[in-house]
Amino acid sequence: MHRPIITLTTDFGTRDSYVAQMKGVILGINPQVQLVDVTHDILPQDVRQAALVLDEAIDAFPAQTIHLVVVDPGVGTDRRIVGAELGGYRFVAPDNGVLSPVARRHAPRRCVQLTESRFWRQPVSNTFHGRDVMGPVAAHWSLGVDLAEFGPALEEPLIELPVPLPRRIPDGVEGEVIRVDSFGNLITNIEQGMLPDEPAARNRAIVEVGSHRIAGIALSYAEHSVGALLAVVGSSGRLEIAVNQGSAADVVGLRAGTCVRLLGCQAAEEDETA
Amino acid sequence: MHRPIITLTTDFGTRDSYVAQMKGVILGINPQVQLVDVTHDILPQDVRQAALVLDEAIDAFPAQTIHLVVVDPGVGTDRRIVGAELGGYRFVAPDNGVLSPVARRHAPRRCVQLTESRFWRQPVSNTFHGRDVMGPVAAHWSLGVDLAEFGPALEEPLIELPVPLPRRIPDGVEGEVIRVDSFGNLITNIEQGMLPDEPAARNRAIVEVGSHRIAGIALSYAEHSVGALLAVVGSSGRLEIAVNQGSAADVVGLRAGTCVRLLGCQAAEEDETA
Amino acid sequence: MHRPIITLTTDFGTRDSYVAQMKGVILGINPQVQLVDVTHDILPQDVRQAALVLDEAIDAFPAQTIHLVVVDPGVGTDRRIVGAELGGYRFVAPDNGVLSPVARRHAPRRCVQLTESRFWRQPVSNTFHGRDVMGPVAAHWSLGVDLAEFGPALEEPLIELPVPLPRRIPDGVEGEVIRVDSFGNLITNIEQGMLPDEPAARNRAIVEVGSHRIAGIALSYAEHSVGALLAVVGSSGRLEIAVNQGSAADVVGLRAGTCVRLLGCQAAEEDETA
Repeated sequence: MHRPIITLTTDFGTRDSYVAQMKGVILGINPQVQLVDVTHDILPQDVRQAALVLDEAIDAFPAQTIHLVVVDPGVGTDRRIVGAELGGYRFVAPDNGVLSPVARRHAPRRCVQLTESRFWRQPVSNTFHGRDVMGPVAAHWSLGVDLAEFGPALEEPLIELPVPLPRRIPDGVEGEVIRVDSFGNLITNIEQGMLPDEPAARNRAIVEVGSHRIAGIALSYAEHSVGALLAVVGSSGRLEIAVNQGSAADVVGLRAGTCVRLLGCQAAEEDETA
Repeated sequence: MHRPIITLTTDFGTRDSYVAQMKGVILGINPQVQLVDVTHDILPQDVRQAALVLDEAIDAFPAQTIHLVVVDPGVGTDRRIVGAELGGYRFVAPDNGVLSPVARRHAPRRCVQLTESRFWRQPVSNTFHGRDVMGPVAAHWSLGVDLAEFGPALEEPLIELPVPLPRRIPDGVEGEVIRVDSFGNLITNIEQGMLPDEPAARNRAIVEVGSHRIAGIALSYAEHSVGALLAVVGSSGRLEIAVNQGSAADVVGLRAGTCVRLLGCQAAEEDETA
Repeated sequence: MHRPIITLTTDFGTRDSYVAQMKGVILGINPQVQLVDVTHDILPQDVRQAALVLDEAIDAFPAQTIHLVVVDPGVGTDRRIVGAELGGYRFVAPDNGVLSPVARRHAPRRCVQLTESRFWRQPVSNTFHGRDVMGPVAAHWSLGVDLAEFGPALEEPLIELPVPLPRRIPDGVEGEVIRVDSFGNLITNIEQGMLPDEPAARNRAIVEVGSHRIAGIALSYAEHSVGALLAVVGSSGRLEIAVNQGSAADVVGLRAGTCVRLLGCQAAEEDETA
């Protein structure tokens, strides 16, 4: 039997019944759906954090999964709500930039503005479109309703969130910490593809973060001694600053926005071709 | 295929395995059930909070959903455990008042005391009836066992929790903050039906809370500027005090129990009929 | 229809998408699986706490349930990852001692080292074997793949975690607090079988913890007045120190590791046979 998946990413927390209300509405429309929480602990109205967490999550899910994202500071205004296919991924979300990291990686195929109120829960609250608009649309989509049924194609592109991008510098790459995870790992915007491939070159690289200099890019947390500050390629393919069995955020006192420099790669590459 | 839903509302938190133990027992009896967490973050033994959260949650769920509520300070005493149909809703809970806000809105149809131990997990712990009594009964109920099988009809009514009710005052309504949600919204006991219908009358209304006076009832959070204190009808149909993209609880320093007055409605209505 | 259960116990927290990524991978392999969270709030790298929580959880689940445990400070080292049948229970976990309380109660039947990479997600991250190795193996196991397919039988026994065991002392039993639950109950390693059976003997027993002396073993929390410190057999069959409608941890200021003495049982038994 087909068991479609809908994931949920919100800033609702878990103390109230808001998440459950969305799930109740969805299951009332499609009782077969498999619901998966991504997180409900996005800081209130923190669209950027939601965008980054979502972007990390989606590759692990099977095709056809619908990702429902309700971090919606503009609820009740005329901000658009969209259904979107980006690459092979499906989303229902307010058009507030929360999809922009995904859209940067996966070209939008089809995006519609959710306007067809016959798919919504009635009456529609002015303060909870997750329950009354987005949840119901995700549920109907999971039943096989075509995306085009939910409203007209977007005429303007999805809103883009200004996200800091890493840039090449003379001797390497300069990026920044974009997110701190619950282990205290500092996740940067420097992606795997920007790192040297050669193990020897990785060993020679220097990572500068705050006043710290880390020699080499490790293969795992446990390669270093307990408590040591290290740089590693994390599970989402990004350079991370971590502490083996500890919290880099606590140890170095750094946060999102901190500049991170990866140095010595250029030189390394030159060495190898020399 | 039929996929019955059982929701769970507890004060167990999520650090221990207590919630999982209940789920394991339920799934051992009915593997097809769809489990939905309402919340496990009710403050320990806070029956009132559980009652309010539950009351907000149930309308979003399809008929036949069974709501299992385990906030049970009297576990191990002779407090009754009940299975109840209130309006079209189904509940399994200790009879400690946790169902009273729902029972005020929806007349009890059938209530039984859970006494038939053949439906229970054996041996029954004296400290965890959620796992050993209530969970199993909810699971059997979801399989289609008739409510009357679980025990005799209640001879006395369900226990009522004294809940503050709003009252009419000369120029409006006086209620109170009954709950603060995780966004910091102050949710009052003043329901939509007590507010003026006319937009003009809503605009003229004054909401007094603590030392604050709020002019007008907004249609959404975002109608006001970021950081502004506002009054709005929230997603559960109750008057809420909120801050656009902020926490009213933090801004005004108020909590459950604070008096809230809605003024100017009476006058408004008189104006309109004049 | 068969709906296999996979439970998840991790130290990932719920702010990031790591748990969801594991679930997505599992559901991509077996869409029918019923996923149950045990907890994701194990303190980072706290193998001992995970071991205790897991040990309490499993009896509530039906046979065939697969318990996936990802508290894995050694990720990326050559620590083994195992699939194990202990008694009638099934586990996928790093071999770091997290299974040892269960293995003490239930003899290992079959244990294999997970080496067959054709069951894994590719590419395998060095920092997230829960998603790339353990989750996929649990999912394939839930589909009916035989345990032996995942790798060779372990040649050495599972790693044992040194866990404090209670010991007989002249007038009773000496154990310790092994875990504090979210209600503040102090859960000890003194099991039901070490307590006197006779109610009269239980009433005569004295429990010493820190500077406190508790007279008698209660049958439930509510048997004592609100706020009273008491000893009771908790839902996992262990002696607990609790406060009726309060937190023993807060009241007595004690933590895991505190010595607990149960006295007067020996004498009681002698009395009875005299």
